[in-house]
Amino acid sequence: MNRPVRVAVVGLGYWGPNLARALEEVDNVHVTWLCDMRRETVDRVGRRHPGAARTTQVDDVLDDDGVDAVVVATPISTHYPLALAALSAGKHTFVEKPLTTSSRQAVALARLAAEQGLVLMPGHTFLYSPPVRAVKRLIEEGALGEIYFVSTSRVNLGIHQADVSVAWDLGPHDFSILRYWLGENPTWVTALTRSCVLPDVPDVAFVNAKFPSGSIAHVELSWLAPSKLRRTTVVGSRQMVVYDDTSNEPVRIFDSGVSLPDFGSYGEHRLSYRTGDIISPRIASDEPLVVEFTDFVAAIREGRKPVSHIDLGIDVVRVVEAVERSLADLGARTSVEADIELEAA
Amino acid sequence: MNRPVRVAVVGLGYWGPNLARALEEVDNVHVTWLCDMRRETVDRVGRRHPGAARTTQVDDVLDDDGVDAVVVATPISTHYPLALAALSAGKHTFVEKPLTTSSRQAVALARLAAEQGLVLMPGHTFLYSPPVRAVKRLIEEGALGEIYFVSTSRVNLGIHQADVSVAWDLGPHDFSILRYWLGENPTWVTALTRSCVLPDVPDVAFVNAKFPSGSIAHVELSWLAPSKLRRTTVVGSRQMVVYDDTSNEPVRIFDSGVSLPDFGSYGEHRLSYRTGDIISPRIASDEPLVVEFTDFVAAIREGRKPVSHIDLGIDVVRVVEAVERSLADLGARTSVEADIELEAA
Amino acid sequence: MNRPVRVAVVGLGYWGPNLARALEEVDNVHVTWLCDMRRETVDRVGRRHPGAARTTQVDDVLDDDGVDAVVVATPISTHYPLALAALSAGKHTFVEKPLTTSSRQAVALARLAAEQGLVLMPGHTFLYSPPVRAVKRLIEEGALGEIYFVSTSRVNLGIHQADVSVAWDLGPHDFSILRYWLGENPTWVTALTRSCVLPDVPDVAFVNAKFPSGSIAHVELSWLAPSKLRRTTVVGSRQMVVYDDTSNEPVRIFDSGVSLPDFGSYGEHRLSYRTGDIISPRIASDEPLVVEFTDFVAAIREGRKPVSHIDLGIDVVRVVEAVERSLADLGARTSVEADIELEAA
Amino acid sequence: MNRPVRVAVVGLGYWGPNLARALEEVDNVHVTWLCDMRRETVDRVGRRHPGAARTTQVDDVLDDDGVDAVVVATPISTHYPLALAALSAGKHTFVEKPLTTSSRQAVALARLAAEQGLVLMPGHTFLYSPPVRAVKRLIEEGALGEIYFVSTSRVNLGIHQADVSVAWDLGPHDFSILRYWLGENPTWVTALTRSCVLPDVPDVAFVNAKFPSGSIAHVELSWLAPSKLRRTTVVGSRQMVVYDDTSNEPVRIFDSGVSLPDFGSYGEHRLSYRTGDIISPRIASDEPLVVEFTDFVAAIREGRKPVSHIDLGIDVVRVVEAVERSLADLGARTSVEADIELEAA
Repeated sequence: MNRPVRVAVVGLGYWGPNLARALEEVDNVHVTWLCDMRRETVDRVGRRHPGAARTTQVDDVLDDDGVDAVVVATPISTHYPLALAALSAGKHTFVEKPLTTSSRQAVALARLAAEQGLVLMPGHTFLYSPPVRAVKRLIEEGALGEIYFVSTSRVNLGIHQADVSVAWDLGPHDFSILRYWLGENPTWVTALTRSCVLPDVPDVAFVNAKFPSGSIAHVELSWLAPSKLRRTTVVGSRQMVVYDDTSNEPVRIFDSGVSLPDFGSYGEHRLSYRTGDIISPRIASDEPLVVEFTDFVAAIREGRKPVSHIDLGIDVVRVVEAVERSLADLGARTSVEADIELEAA
Repeated sequence: MNRPVRVAVVGLGYWGPNLARALEEVDNVHVTWLCDMRRETVDRVGRRHPGAARTTQVDDVLDDDGVDAVVVATPISTHYPLALAALSAGKHTFVEKPLTTSSRQAVALARLAAEQGLVLMPGHTFLYSPPVRAVKRLIEEGALGEIYFVSTSRVNLGIHQADVSVAWDLGPHDFSILRYWLGENPTWVTALTRSCVLPDVPDVAFVNAKFPSGSIAHVELSWLAPSKLRRTTVVGSRQMVVYDDTSNEPVRIFDSGVSLPDFGSYGEHRLSYRTGDIISPRIASDEPLVVEFTDFVAAIREGRKPVSHIDLGIDVVRVVEAVERSLADLGARTSVEADIELEAA
Repeated sequence: MNRPVRVAVVGLGYWGPNLARALEEVDNVHVTWLCDMRRETVDRVGRRHPGAARTTQVDDVLDDDGVDAVVVATPISTHYPLALAALSAGKHTFVEKPLTTSSRQAVALARLAAEQGLVLMPGHTFLYSPPVRAVKRLIEEGALGEIYFVSTSRVNLGIHQADVSVAWDLGPHDFSILRYWLGENPTWVTALTRSCVLPDVPDVAFVNAKFPSGSIAHVELSWLAPSKLRRTTVVGSRQMVVYDDTSNEPVRIFDSGVSLPDFGSYGEHRLSYRTGDIISPRIASDEPLVVEFTDFVAAIREGRKPVSHIDLGIDVVRVVEAVERSLADLGARTSVEADIELEAA
Repeated sequence: MNRPVRVAVVGLGYWGPNLARALEEVDNVHVTWLCDMRRETVDRVGRRHPGAARTTQVDDVLDDDGVDAVVVATPISTHYPLALAALSAGKHTFVEKPLTTSSRQAVALARLAAEQGLVLMPGHTFLYSPPVRAVKRLIEEGALGEIYFVSTSRVNLGIHQADVSVAWDLGPHDFSILRYWLGENPTWVTALTRSCVLPDVPDVAFVNAKFPSGSIAHVELSWLAPSKLRRTTVVGSRQMVVYDDTSNEPVRIFDSGVSLPDFGSYGEHRLSYRTGDIISPRIASDEPLVVEFTDFVAAIREGRKPVSHIDLGIDVVRVVEAVERSLADLGARTSVEADIELEAA
């Protein structure tokens, strides 16, 4: 396929217009359709994309044989039916995170895509953010040693969606990053939340997660806080890293560690702490959305797996599901099982 | 009692000498004995306290009718027998935190003290720290409104004790502060830990706690981290507070909040965030240890309850016990019950 | 004048397009012309302003009777001839800072504007920045007491212009802010600079300034630095303020001060320092450029003096002139005199 | 000399007791005398040094043949007569900074010491501070390239001495560091100060300094400020360094620089800024005072020049003298000349 990849954007609310803009910045991509239920919205966004047709009917998009791929940026509850329709119409499909509201749906979509030979990609944009990739490289190179634990806080003053908890809204960011960095999904989680402002809309969540390798993680998610905070600490046996998305120095590497202790008398002893240099590596300023869509287009053209791949997307949904089950069970320990039934099928 | 209160300090390891020094700075207190199993230690510390007698035998202290009170600063596992002996000998007793290694023991000591009319006080020094008291005042005055949640990280590069987990070592600080601020103990906890450096010595713990009032809390405890961190966020319905023990501005009050949302179309809406001034109130620089012993002495002289009182100390032990039970049960939700059997007795 | 004010923007390089955009956001203003010597530039910027005519000839603008006001955003050396032509053509004129490259020219423009009854306004945008105004209010209310001194660092990694020193490029920001806050111009300055990168283009300047009231100031200007820095400290007899344009808390008020000393023996004594609360007041987020043009338009409609008024603009040019004379005289103390000859004329 | 060096400390006010304590921590040094005019002071400090004799008469010290060296920590105005007497009595002499209140006196002392073959060392302790030495190494290794400029702020809320300006009190710190780092003394200075609190006691000073190599520096000194501040920026052609004595990361190296510009059209161009990693090297935690006295003792034993050597001490006095002359001349540019007369003699 030497011609431009022709992409339709479906859903032009808060986030969709950003996706349309970023798509235009990718080489050899053409935004051919803009679609939203609200005529006014389509027209407003459409003015910035004179080359794109506008519609309020998604069928106009799906019936157009000239469309190669559909980008779905609608409310979460509509992800599944829209992605199903797009794949059924033979379109490569990009779905904003989270992929679906159940892993059963996510697995069904994945199967359909595989059967049709189509790319189905969940939009975990943070995996394309330069500091997240820098930490991934450090882990892969072994610079951090064994990963003992990860502690992360994501606090975002912003949108409340009446049908979605903070776990579904913010959780996929951290669960996708952990899946990417550690290369594994948690075995089980426990979660504690509260619906502080609106009844039955959890707006703060404390999630603990245990991984097969022995690593553990804590994830704090909140829509309520004195100030925006995005701080992740990765503690390894060799080095430690602090990743702070809001800082001018988003990755700081601490060449510190703990040595085996000198045992003293009376059962008391001090570990010997090694303190070394701190390095803030220069981090590229590539825009994650553009890198993400470049990867999506390459996956379409070359038939290869994107970094934000479908198994990762399914795993993220499984973690959020487990978090929600733990909440429903008042914080009980809850397995993050692969869906046995579907797997066995 | 107009004469000085005569105090013996038992245990002169890492912390005991600090206690002895602080006692000397309290009005109308006399340090009469210094006691440690190690002769060399007693002599070294003793040179700074020429007015105190020295011994390696705790019985010398307990047999001295001139001793009004005993301060116990020995390894945790010896707290119970030493406090039991001191109370049995008719001495007011101050025990470094945590009071004991089981709530059963703690309750037994409390009963003995009550029967004898003696003060038994656990050494929760943070309750006497000026920023912790400043936050307490804000809560009591209603400045924060309803307390939605508390999130706290305590990371201390330091002593490992072979017989004690990070939960027993650092946990009592945060659990005592939460008990003091909120005036209640958690109903249940879940805890996830790992023994990263030494086998079977948990050195990182993520604890979630649910309180009767509906407040929730997360407590992160660790001996491993890139840098010392002590940061507590208290989110209330009216204002929010950040308390950072390591900062030049240890208490920062955010006059921020969330208003009821404007509901938009399509089920999406934004909460209206109120942003106001930020205030760093001037915090006194009183030394917590001196204030704490002043309270201990006043409790002895006036027969009143100290701020760090025995019920609070028992409650703290109950939380750590529940944390340990949750760990043993692989992170399961665990009740922080009052000891039914003893209570009923 | 009830109809919109019709404004032409002349000069569409780095800064001009921002001005055009901001003008469109002011009520009852119409951008009627866009002018730049470069056809390609006019066309590129013009696409965002479909209602504006485009030209590469400034005479097209000046000959149009429908134009009420001209905004000049060209290189500094052309400010004088363009403003002269605009005023001569009967247009109200806004000139980007610095007004001109000599106070003689600035005074000549001011006279012409006064004779013609036209508004001539220098573009000192920082005077419209919410934190700068907040500090102005604190000074006016007397909250700071007597202003002892101001120390400011402005470090901007950015544009070098081959015909302009850092003093002409960055200096007008700080000299206009000082003139606004203190209500007076320096009596004299001393300046030390260096041309580090390009020969004869000073890229770092240390300026000391003495004011009639007794206040003193230091202004550090630099295009070379490890990181962007904009930090101003205002020390008054009652309170102190730190203004940092790059911070989330751009104004911080320190309720601190110095009391008369307790004289001790041997000629040694300590001042008694008063330490109080620190307050970060909520600062509005109005865009300075929009507020500035709103003031420009109000000055035109109502015939009143804008906050960034012409006398202030002349004074700023006089300070930069004095700085340049001090440099030429190897850092000697140099008077910031009003231009006697012209004043007397 | 294999026996301990026997040292007398003269002057036990604010700083002297620290010197006595640090001396005791140096190998093979014996504090033999403690001397202060105030009997009570001598006795109080003496209790911590049971091995030292006590006196209120400096002649007791000077007459004692067993004394090898005298450490002078008295008020500045007495430095000269005391050092003169000590050298005349054949003692090696350490004088707290500044060495004397005039360069004439400083040179006279230096000559006397040279004639007698004695060590005369000014106490510029910052030259022994690990971060200052780390920056010195970076400069010597050429890591920073050519030093374009240094900008430094030293703000200390503290002691006012009625007979001393902020330039004499705090200036020697920065002027000694600059002399050490750059290996040269300024050619000339300009200084602007104000006596804000006490009449005729300047408590804020802005000093600009020009060096023979072309480097320039700004030094801000103040006893009045919202908070303690010690921040020095060194901008070189290759790298830049920020040294902050109050930070946990006292030295930060910015691998940044400026490349020759790409010239654009219309005389406007942007420099190309190179942005690289930021490194906070691990800095040793040696106590400067102990390192300084170790150097003093080595100079005595081995007859070599200490790092804080006498020519540097004289140069520092010359800079402060020039600053004071500039002040007296209302901020005029003032040469930092070597004292021609004395040199010629």
